[in-house]
This record gives sequence, structure tokens and C-alpha cells, in this order.
Amino acid sequence: MSETVKYLLSEDRIPKAWYNLAADLPVPLPPPLHPGTGQVIGPDDLAPIFPKAVIEQEVSTERWIDIPEPVRDVYRLWRPAPLIRARALEKALDTPAKLYFKYEGVSPAGSHKPNTAVPQAFYNKQEGITRLSTETGAGQWGSSLAFAGSLFGIEVEVYMVKVSYQQKPYRRALMETYGATCIASPSNLTQAGRDILAKDPNSNGSLGIAISEAVEVAASRSDTNYALGSVLNHVCLHQTIIGEEAILQMEMAGDQPDIVIACTGGGSNFAGLAFPYIREKIKGSKVRIIGVEPASCPTLTRGRYAYDYGDTGRLTPMVKMHTLGSTFMPPGSHSGGLRYHGMAPMVSHVKELGLMEARAYHQTECFAAAARFARAEGIVPAPESSHAIKGAIDEALRCKVEGRAETILFNLSGHGHFDMQAYTDHFSGKLIDPTFNQSALDIALSELPNVG
Amino acid sequence: MSETVKYLLSEDRIPKAWYNLAADLPVPLPPPLHPGTGQVIGPDDLAPIFPKAVIEQEVSTERWIDIPEPVRDVYRLWRPAPLIRARALEKALDTPAKLYFKYEGVSPAGSHKPNTAVPQAFYNKQEGITRLSTETGAGQWGSSLAFAGSLFGIEVEVYMVKVSYQQKPYRRALMETYGATCIASPSNLTQAGRDILAKDPNSNGSLGIAISEAVEVAASRSDTNYALGSVLNHVCLHQTIIGEEAILQMEMAGDQPDIVIACTGGGSNFAGLAFPYIREKIKGSKVRIIGVEPASCPTLTRGRYAYDYGDTGRLTPMVKMHTLGSTFMPPGSHSGGLRYHGMAPMVSHVKELGLMEARAYHQTECFAAAARFARAEGIVPAPESSHAIKGAIDEALRCKVEGRAETILFNLSGHGHFDMQAYTDHFSGKLIDPTFNQSALDIALSELPNVG
Repeated sequence: MSETVKYLLSEDRIPKAWYNLAADLPVPLPPPLHPGTGQVIGPDDLAPIFPKAVIEQEVSTERWIDIPEPVRDVYRLWRPAPLIRARALEKALDTPAKLYFKYEGVSPAGSHKPNTAVPQAFYNKQEGITRLSTETGAGQWGSSLAFAGSLFGIEVEVYMVKVSYQQKPYRRALMETYGATCIASPSNLTQAGRDILAKDPNSNGSLGIAISEAVEVAASRSDTNYALGSVLNHVCLHQTIIGEEAILQMEMAGDQPDIVIACTGGGSNFAGLAFPYIREKIKGSKVRIIGVEPASCPTLTRGRYAYDYGDTGRLTPMVKMHTLGSTFMPPGSHSGGLRYHGMAPMVSHVKELGLMEARAYHQTECFAAAARFARAEGIVPAPESSHAIKGAIDEALRCKVEGRAETILFNLSGHGHFDMQAYTDHFSGKLIDPTFNQSALDIALSELPNVG
Repeated sequence: MSETVKYLLSEDRIPKAWYNLAADLPVPLPPPLHPGTGQVIGPDDLAPIFPKAVIEQEVSTERWIDIPEPVRDVYRLWRPAPLIRARALEKALDTPAKLYFKYEGVSPAGSHKPNTAVPQAFYNKQEGITRLSTETGAGQWGSSLAFAGSLFGIEVEVYMVKVSYQQKPYRRALMETYGATCIASPSNLTQAGRDILAKDPNSNGSLGIAISEAVEVAASRSDTNYALGSVLNHVCLHQTIIGEEAILQMEMAGDQPDIVIACTGGGSNFAGLAFPYIREKIKGSKVRIIGVEPASCPTLTRGRYAYDYGDTGRLTPMVKMHTLGSTFMPPGSHSGGLRYHGMAPMVSHVKELGLMEARAYHQTECFAAAARFARAEGIVPAPESSHAIKGAIDEALRCKVEGRAETILFNLSGHGHFDMQAYTDHFSGKLIDPTFNQSALDIALSELPNVG
């Protein structure tokens, strides 16, 4: 029987500033390099595709960056997001550990992605931009930008990774309901897409390819900017509202996490919850920070820390990050949002500094964890978020073996209402673990740019 | 640009009691009659399929009924539900009216239905019941009972109207994720189902048929009770938590509704929001109360107020209600939750007493209203809830013509994340308005039982 303990902030306690980890890093982040020249790039290089305010945030080392009132105003539609003690799951696991989760699925798009979609739409609107192009994997980001675009009157064009476009028609319908246009990527609308299709007409697509297409459109049209849903510093920045709220809510609970867990794809929901705790860790806290990624796309656990392109078409700047190589094609999985060859440079840097751990799980064990969670706590998780749940359950079971009452906080970054086909496949035994192709990884790593 | 104004109660203000309109009705509700004998039935007649606590609530005339602590405990997972001022929609309509909506889509199942699923599961658990059978139309109710069953450790068997079972596979997957069993109705597992299939092997099913199947199973197994998601007094009672919260939130807003609007299928989300306001109306308030139903299943606007069976198989008691006749087969539509031949006796009674108005809309105009709402307010409504939105928009446009700044409160009873196929059909122009068959209605009304 459930005993819900939910910690809900009052609206006036929605944080008024985002936290910028760059201000507290013991070693500064390696700079991005120009994709053509290999030279360190400056703000001007980004001006054709991003608004000025966003570029400033991308390179800022200010510790706190004010959240504009119109952004907080939209945040209020679903924020503060609840922090919930997973007592029923604790009982089901018979663990002395205390499990808490921050639930970001309460947003209208069903995930944490609107936390950055809204400010990105706002800053673009402020600077007179009328169109945004973007990529999306599973569709969480695309539908979030479509949502934000509809509120601010900005047209949104989404390049959706083809395997997800076909697998998740309802995510596409959601984008269209918000008035956005959704295109299967690779498409023949861009040179980047045509190049891929010429090589492989049946390409399933990837986030790397979709980014190339969206960037190409933004670079070639003056009315259009580009918006990215993860990886970049300003995206991680916007997501810190999650962790800042969580800190206040853990105080309400009279508790402190010993372990903070989130799934990692591009790194944004992880950064959102974890960066404020990494600040505390830098100051001396003993908190453990764990990123959980899919074994089929193991950027942090099997990738190389090196300069690489953010996209397959090599249109974006090179950034230093954990990467499987921008030419690596991750196998299709139901966690489209985690299917990216790279990792946020800031997250990668934190990993290199020893401020976080990483581990990888197979999708079938994550779905089993998700179903266990749903039946105990009543919320059906997004496949991406199920990785964090699996990580939290494993830590809770370790606590049981060791007889330790540790406090575990994880990010439930989204609900799985658009992913029910995956659950159906899981229950019918049709779900398989995609094979990881080591030789393809070796080839892709050998093709990394020779810089930095 | 959005200017969200959300009124969120603190958790300690979740109401501690449900409101029972029976205590304040100027004329008592006509009693239910035995389906076989036509005599007034007593609590004992309901004992084979309902727990004692629920039967007591069904016939109670106490004004306030305490919400058990374990139920409030689960409610806290998503309650208090937000009340939101729809400023962006007001601007889009250029109306002087003020629009507020109560948003029940924040529950884990995505609608208001868990408000009664949770107490029903709780009371059954308390009385040692291990299995519940039920029916569902679009799947909102079935998934809510599956959710509640999983939290309280009760097995749930759901008879889902066949047209929805086929149209909404993801609702079914949601029920299965919560561990429930879902069966397309009419099925060959029950006599009621076999009788229908013998007459019409291709039957699309209806709520009336699915109720017969679920009741038959409960009546024939001692470990199994039946749970109904709408219509009955105790269901309306449990839903009043919506209106009681709304009253507190409208006070926070410093405002009072001139008009309260909700969609009506079986009547439960309408009762939930409206009954507390009808109490005020009985006491002298001038508030207008409007129920909005689909033109394809126009119970309140074209049905007869008469004694009728709640199901097609004539297993349930006869209740006095607005009905299209228990043999009437409403055409398929995307608002499966509103596709019921009858109406809650309490709602029907309120309509007869002149305490509410009713109107009917076609589904295409409701989807157009839903898309308009989604693009302004960022939330994609359930097709059922879109009827309330259409009603609210029409009233807001009337206010514009009349230059009146009335305050309109409507119930956004659920989100549409499982109904995206319907939105796809709407945008592609494939959605049609089902034809209403007047001669079929005449025949069904001629078959009403000759009692009362």
C-alpha cells in the first residue's frame, strides 16, 4: 500500500537563477574549435545560428544567471516539479536505503526538455527570430521545442531520427498538434541528408545526422536559428533548475542524498540534477554522482575523451567530449533520447575530473526496472529515465547487502506515455538488447579529427 | 507570449472530506430498482459486487464523508491538482471573459479517474477482496483502476469496448504495465458477451455491454468485486475533491466563477467539479452550470428521463436517468469516455431540477477547440475534455459579443497523450462527425423498461 511523501515547493520558491558550473570548475573547460580551421572559436562564429543571449550563456563563467520573468512565468505551468519519496519501491526492494526521485514528467511535453526549450524560444523571440530548426531523437526534445514555439509564436521545424519517426508516430502527432513541422531524417531537404541517403538509402538516421540537417537549415536562412536540446553548456545551465529545486526539496525532507543518479544521453537531464550537487562536491560534500547510459551507446564508459564534431556532417564546432566518433551509428533502441555518439563537454569534463562515475545497462534490464517502478509508484517512466531507475535500484540493493541506509536521489526525467509500444514489446518478450559493434566503434574512433 | 497564473494549494489543504450533494438536494433522488422484480433495492442487493463501505456511500445522505488517510496519501502523488488561468487563450480569443481551468491530467493515469479508482481499490482491499473487474471505454478508467490496483495489490480485469481496444493499443499497454488484464468486449468469456456476439459477431462493443461482462464476472466469483468508473453516487462523491479544491483555488485567485463547465459522459468529472458549485447554487449563488456532451451520444439533450438499466445485458439495477435506452448503440467516436447510453442519476436529477444546462457538440468542432487550446496553453487535451473547452470558448465568445467580463471555470479532465491518432486524423482532415441515428434512438426508447 502506497504511502506517498511528496515534497512540493510553493511557486514563489521556483529558483530565480540558473546555476553555472563553469564558475566553480577547478580546471576550465577546453574550448570549442572551428570545424574548418581547428582554431578556438569565439562568440561571433556562433552568431549565424544562435541568439546573442544564448551565446553569452554558452561561454559565461558567472555563477548565477538570472531566469527572465517571462520564462519563470511559463515554468509556472508545471514547476516546481515534485520530489517524491519512493517508499513503495523501497518496501518492494526490502532495502534500508531511502529512495527519492525528482519527477520532470509533469511538464506539458512530458519531460525535462521544456526547461531549456522555453528560454531558448524566449531569447530567439526577443532577438526577432521567427523560425527555429532542430533535431529530435525519440521526440521528447522536438515536442518540447514545438510546445515552447507555440507559446512564443515561433515556427518550429523538427528533423526526427527516422527510426523514431517510424516507431513513435504519436510523438510526431504531438509536435504537429503544437503546430510544428516534423521531417524524417535523413531527408532530401538538406545537403547533409542527401549525402547520407546517397551512401545508405535505408539509413535509420541518428541524432548526429539530424543535427547536421537542422544546423544546415539554420545556417542558410536568416530568419531561422538553430536550437539544441542537449550537449551545450547553455542547455545544461537551463536544466539546473531541476537540481536547485531538488536541493530545496531535500531540505524540506530533512535529508541529503549520498548518491545522485541520472541517465545520460547528451547529458542535459543529468547536468540538470547533478551540477548543483557537483558544486557541493567541489566544496567538500561526499555525495556520489552516477551517470547511467545504455550499453548500446556507451559514450562515457567505452568512448574516448577527445575533440570531435557534434554531428555526422561535421558542420558543428569540435568540442572535447566522450565520444564514440561522429561517424559511429548507434544501433536502434527504444531510448532514442540516449542514442547520441557524444556527451555534453561539461559532463565529460566533470567525468575526467573524477567528480562523477558512469555505468551502462542493457535496455531489457532497464524496462524490467521501469515496470517494477511503475507497479510500485504508479508512474510509467520514459525508457530513457528507466536507466536512472535501474541504477537506483542496483544501489538500493547494494545498500541491502551492506546493511546501509543510504539516501539515493534520482531523476525521473519523463513519463513513458508515448513509449507504450516499447512496454508492449517488453511484456511480450519481443524486446531485445541491441548488439554493440566493437569493430564499428574502432573504425569510428580512428576517424576522429586529429586536433587538440 | 504566455503569462501563466497557476493556483496551487499546499498539500495540507487537500480536502479531508468528499462532498455529498444528496445532503442538500431539495428533492430526494429516485431510488434504484431491482432489475428482476422492479422493487426498490436495498444495500444487501449490492453486496455481491461492492464492498460495504462503498454501498454505504452510495445511499448516504451525510453531507461530508471523510477521506481515509491511506487514500489522501495516494492522492498526494498528484494532488492538489493545479487551477490555471488561461490567459493566452483569453488573448487569442480577444475576450473580456476570464477563463480558468482545473487540470486533472497531472495524475499518473492522465485523468480525473484515479480520484475514485484509489478509494474503490482501498475499500475493496480493506474488505479482503483480491480481484476487481471493470469496463472501460477509451481506457481512462481501466488504466486508472489498474494503477490503483497495482498500488494496493489487487488484481484487475478490464473489459475494454472493442472499438477503443483496437483504436487505442497504448491505453491497453498502460493497463498491462500496471499489471492488469485487458479483454476486448464483447468477449466470449461471459454469457453477456456471447449473447451479443451471437447476434452481431462484428459488434464494436459499447460501455453498456462491457459493464454487463464485468458485472457478470464479479457476481459469479466470490473473490471478485466490480468497480464502476462513473454514473453511481459514490463515484460522483469521490470526484468532488476536484470542485472542493477548485473553490479554495478560486478564492486564492480572488475570483468566483459565473459559469462552471465540464464534459458529460457518465457524469463523473462533471459531478466532481460542479456538485460543490451546485451546493452554492442551491444556497442562492447565481452560478450557471453547463454540461457538454457529444452530439453523437446526446444523453442529456436528446435522451429521455426514465428508469433504465445501466448495462446492455440488463444485469444492473434500474436507475432513473437521462438515457438513450440501454439497447442504443452510440456510433464510434474518439471520445470513448463519453460514449454511454445513460447519465449519472444524480446529474440527471440535477438537470431535472433546473440546476444545470446541457448542450451537445460535434467531435470535429471539439478537436478544433482542443488544438486552439493546446497551441495557446501548451497542454494537449483528451478528446473528452475538448467538449468542455469548446463550451468554454463559446461562452467566452458570447461574452465578447456582449462585452461582459464573466468568469468561466472549466474542467480539463485529462490529457490527450494516448489519443494522438485522433489528432493526426483531425489535422489530416480524416476525422468525421459520426451520424446520429434518430430511428435507432426511437426504437431503443420504445424498449425502455415499463417501471417508475
